[in-house]
Amino acid sequence: MESAIPLHLKTQRTRHKRVPDDYQPPYPSFVARYKPGVVRVVMAYFGVQYRDVAPAAAMEALAAIGERFAGEGGPTHWDRAHYVDQAGYTNVVSAAYWDDIARFDAWFEPSREAWTGKGREEIGTFIEVLRPAVARHETLFSSLGRPEGVAVIADGMSGEVQEHAYWGGMRDRIPLSQSDPMTPGGVPELIRDGARLRVKAHDNLCLIRSGQDWSDTEASERKLYLDDVEPVLREGMDFLRDDGLVIGCYANRYMQVLAAGSRASEKSYGQSWWKSLAALERWAESHPTHVKIFGAAMKYLSTLGPSAKLRLYHEVTVAAADEQFFEYLSCHPKTGMLAAVQSAGA
Amino acid sequence: MESAIPLHLKTQRTRHKRVPDDYQPPYPSFVARYKPGVVRVVMAYFGVQYRDVAPAAAMEALAAIGERFAGEGGPTHWDRAHYVDQAGYTNVVSAAYWDDIARFDAWFEPSREAWTGKGREEIGTFIEVLRPAVARHETLFSSLGRPEGVAVIADGMSGEVQEHAYWGGMRDRIPLSQSDPMTPGGVPELIRDGARLRVKAHDNLCLIRSGQDWSDTEASERKLYLDDVEPVLREGMDFLRDDGLVIGCYANRYMQVLAAGSRASEKSYGQSWWKSLAALERWAESHPTHVKIFGAAMKYLSTLGPSAKLRLYHEVTVAAADEQFFEYLSCHPKTGMLAAVQSAGA
Repeated sequence: MESAIPLHLKTQRTRHKRVPDDYQPPYPSFVARYKPGVVRVVMAYFGVQYRDVAPAAAMEALAAIGERFAGEGGPTHWDRAHYVDQAGYTNVVSAAYWDDIARFDAWFEPSREAWTGKGREEIGTFIEVLRPAVARHETLFSSLGRPEGVAVIADGMSGEVQEHAYWGGMRDRIPLSQSDPMTPGGVPELIRDGARLRVKAHDNLCLIRSGQDWSDTEASERKLYLDDVEPVLREGMDFLRDDGLVIGCYANRYMQVLAAGSRASEKSYGQSWWKSLAALERWAESHPTHVKIFGAAMKYLSTLGPSAKLRLYHEVTVAAADEQFFEYLSCHPKTGMLAAVQSAGA
Repeated sequence: MESAIPLHLKTQRTRHKRVPDDYQPPYPSFVARYKPGVVRVVMAYFGVQYRDVAPAAAMEALAAIGERFAGEGGPTHWDRAHYVDQAGYTNVVSAAYWDDIARFDAWFEPSREAWTGKGREEIGTFIEVLRPAVARHETLFSSLGRPEGVAVIADGMSGEVQEHAYWGGMRDRIPLSQSDPMTPGGVPELIRDGARLRVKAHDNLCLIRSGQDWSDTEASERKLYLDDVEPVLREGMDFLRDDGLVIGCYANRYMQVLAAGSRASEKSYGQSWWKSLAALERWAESHPTHVKIFGAAMKYLSTLGPSAKLRLYHEVTVAAADEQFFEYLSCHPKTGMLAAVQSAGA
């Protein structure tokens, strides 16, 4: 049993963790471990948005960003996912990960210009980037052997960690929680730069990417997941997307991961932006929609026991104000963090 | 909105509460307020145990303790409840409350001698007492107007309090949590004193009395409670009673409150002894049996909204080692805290 907080990020505590030192989680979970030299990671979401059938411009944009990812200074790992949003628009989002800020910065400037610098026919584009210090970030995996998202660029995975399977574990895994309540400050602001809309959010904005991978499940387990768990998960994701703002969720996308050749894979993830880690905690712990998800997942896992082949993971970041970047071009007004400022301005 | 911790028990914090200062609970709840002069309360459970039909000795014992309660120095409030335990024994438990230690002590010595000092034909008797400093104790009520248990002896009820409707609220309502993790110390020990068996538990033993009152519910709400909530609650209570030890629950009684004349009332409560507040927290937050209870209760309350007539309350104490007393005479070995030492010795 090891701490989710790596040794080199242990600090003098002014805030206690939520469980006693002898706490034993009831089942194993694991976290990504970066090389100690990694001080920041970058997670950058590049979105293409269009209505109905994909226009040629969308295909061209996706090919172009793929080429940039493969080029000099590109991400160590990226994946692509797809969803139809509340306004009926299709969004194809390429999520890319770096562990070197200088490399990212050099790569980003021209890539940004190419992505949101000039309008394209029939499509919108957007960029959402966090570049957190590693102390502002945590991951959790239900099993080993298939890292996803930011964990792919890590050095490897931990052994079994202590800080999970209780409410508050997410916070306790973030190294900064040892000394900082991570209180949000300020409200999101809209900045107009010609046709480009930028959102300046606020200190301690929170991002979660929470993923599901049912590709290893077989007959009865697959049926149980798709019939009993997925619909409840979808209902909660829809709630966050449509009505999340009142509880501090600025935006939510429940996306299907695309495999090579743009075929849908048997992986999905929810990606949501939150006013604070506390707001995310409250939803997860006590909102009826997540209580249902938690109940369905618990029933599923207790039915299957250790034989369950479903893989679950998440990554959570609480970003400082200067670790964020949001830019939207020709997107509808409920896209991503635009929803937060639309509402604030309304 | 006020803090559950009364002003005169506020101390310099070395431990943070679990929610930010601007946290707003989604529905109202209330706590008992004692007069500031009250430094300790006493909760004393006097049990009679027998098999099958109540023997005359049981009736006599119940009448006798009732007379003592009514006599000089007796409790400010008491109630009586009934349940059939895992060994098939009927237990009738009279729970009595004081807010003055000196008065209790004077009353207790002869009453104890009468209750567990000498054996009676066909019945067992037991006493379980906590006398916590008020800083080691909290209550919570879903509505005003009908205090139960220790709250009956309070000066009154608070306004709406902040520290509830999130996991960790129970701890945050206990004033001592401002500076103390309330870590348990030691293991329960059996002390034989002739036929009398005493249990010396350990520092920071935890007691919860968690009650339900459906006497105000009408047709459809009553049916919903009795059909959809109560069976799930009972299942969780049975789990704690039969298998709680491995998760730190020493003993659990799910009791039906008796009205005057020993008729069953439409009130029940679970009373359980825990190794620590942390163990109770873990069960409540993540054990499948309580997740089901929580899910059923949440569904019930969200179906009914503010019109719900079901009343819920609890009282929780984390007692110092010298604030506890457990004594059993002619009871079966799984009675109350005897279960903890039986197992420890096995």
